[in-house]
Amino acid sequence: MRPQIVLFGDSITEQSFRLGGWGAALADTYTRKADILNRGYGGYNTRWALFLLHHLFSLDAPTPPVAVTIFFGANDAALLGRTSERQHVPLEEYKENLRKMIQHFKKCSPSVLVLLITPPPIDEAGRFEYARSLYGDKAMQLPERTNEVAGEYAKQCVELAEELGLPSVNLWSKMQETEGWQRKFLSDGLHLTPDGNAIVYQEVIKVFNETSLSAAKMPADVPHHSIIDGQKPEKAFQLQCPTI
Amino acid sequence: MRPQIVLFGDSITEQSFRLGGWGAALADTYTRKADILNRGYGGYNTRWALFLLHHLFSLDAPTPPVAVTIFFGANDAALLGRTSERQHVPLEEYKENLRKMIQHFKKCSPSVLVLLITPPPIDEAGRFEYARSLYGDKAMQLPERTNEVAGEYAKQCVELAEELGLPSVNLWSKMQETEGWQRKFLSDGLHLTPDGNAIVYQEVIKVFNETSLSAAKMPADVPHHSIIDGQKPEKAFQLQCPTI
Repeated sequence: MRPQIVLFGDSITEQSFRLGGWGAALADTYTRKADILNRGYGGYNTRWALFLLHHLFSLDAPTPPVAVTIFFGANDAALLGRTSERQHVPLEEYKENLRKMIQHFKKCSPSVLVLLITPPPIDEAGRFEYARSLYGDKAMQLPERTNEVAGEYAKQCVELAEELGLPSVNLWSKMQETEGWQRKFLSDGLHLTPDGNAIVYQEVIKVFNETSLSAAKMPADVPHHSIIDGQKPEKAFQLQCPTI
Repeated sequence: MRPQIVLFGDSITEQSFRLGGWGAALADTYTRKADILNRGYGGYNTRWALFLLHHLFSLDAPTPPVAVTIFFGANDAALLGRTSERQHVPLEEYKENLRKMIQHFKKCSPSVLVLLITPPPIDEAGRFEYARSLYGDKAMQLPERTNEVAGEYAKQCVELAEELGLPSVNLWSKMQETEGWQRKFLSDGLHLTPDGNAIVYQEVIKVFNETSLSAAKMPADVPHHSIIDGQKPEKAFQLQCPTI
């Protein structure tokens, strides 16, 4: 009954309801307006996420989401021949997988707002430190992700959005505009700090605010308590929700 | 498709996805297991909330919630003859309104887990300071809520839960076990600080963990990425989600 906004992505989406998370912040903004559903799958790349599409987003759903954020690429961009190569998806396939997702969401609902988010930048030193904290001297010596390669995936993501006339958030670029982004926005060289989450929230809400999905413009579902007459409460409900 | 846990209540529920909020913390705990839906309505008492029952929770819903938290009373306990008297609901009616809610949820789904949460304690000095910060010298001189009266509502809530064999969280008592609860848990004498939210989260999760709704015991919806074979990804999906 309440409109649904779905966050589809990898661990950066899955963790988006942690303290200071961008998903929780969206849920707070859309209180009484829309439900924010977390469909984040840690470790997933776009190839594996395609297996989930029909499972999570049925073409027959009576009430498909009004908006979907697609936020993959951090795992696709894992390098071949390094410790995370299992997650690697070639650049061209990444772009085509995103295209398939978009096509699916548009089939579910032609009016759905699809917002593409690029992977964040990679702080290679931060990744190395994180690996050392886990594995000590056995940590990989060569990075499993580089910022340069993540940037190539981000570029494909933004180009696809432009090609299809969709909004996008170039998180890879946006974060690097701030000096010290490596520690300010990333907790382990890849995942987001609360400040990093705040950037995602701000950029996503900026896009939503320019559409009919601006929380401020969406109707509240039931009367605000201040307009309820203490003596005749039914009046306010009959007026705003005739089906009550 | 994913089980739903609904948080039904007043402003303390509505604000539960703010920074450090108990709703967001639940959503994080239930990532990939259940959706946490916020049905909090600031300013509402149980009398007004009854108007929403059928609107929000249809008896014909194909997939009713697996659990509901009912968290009202802070507004019902507003005193007659004071600035918030419009929100006042007599003690006995409060209890009966809670009973009607529970009956409705049980009709929606006999197996639903209903968890009652009492109103928090009231810090009268904190309320007064808050009123002065808003209205200066025009602030009310007499409290619109007292801790003693909030405690009477809490007592009715817990007694009803015991009568019906339902779990409950006595937030009013629990918070007052900690010295300095007034400032530690309450931001304006009524609403919750992040520490106050943490108490709600801990108490709610303690109840859930003793049931089949323990997040740790609930199955994940799709394969963990670590068991996906990079060469034959379809295998893991066919095994865990045969319908994919």
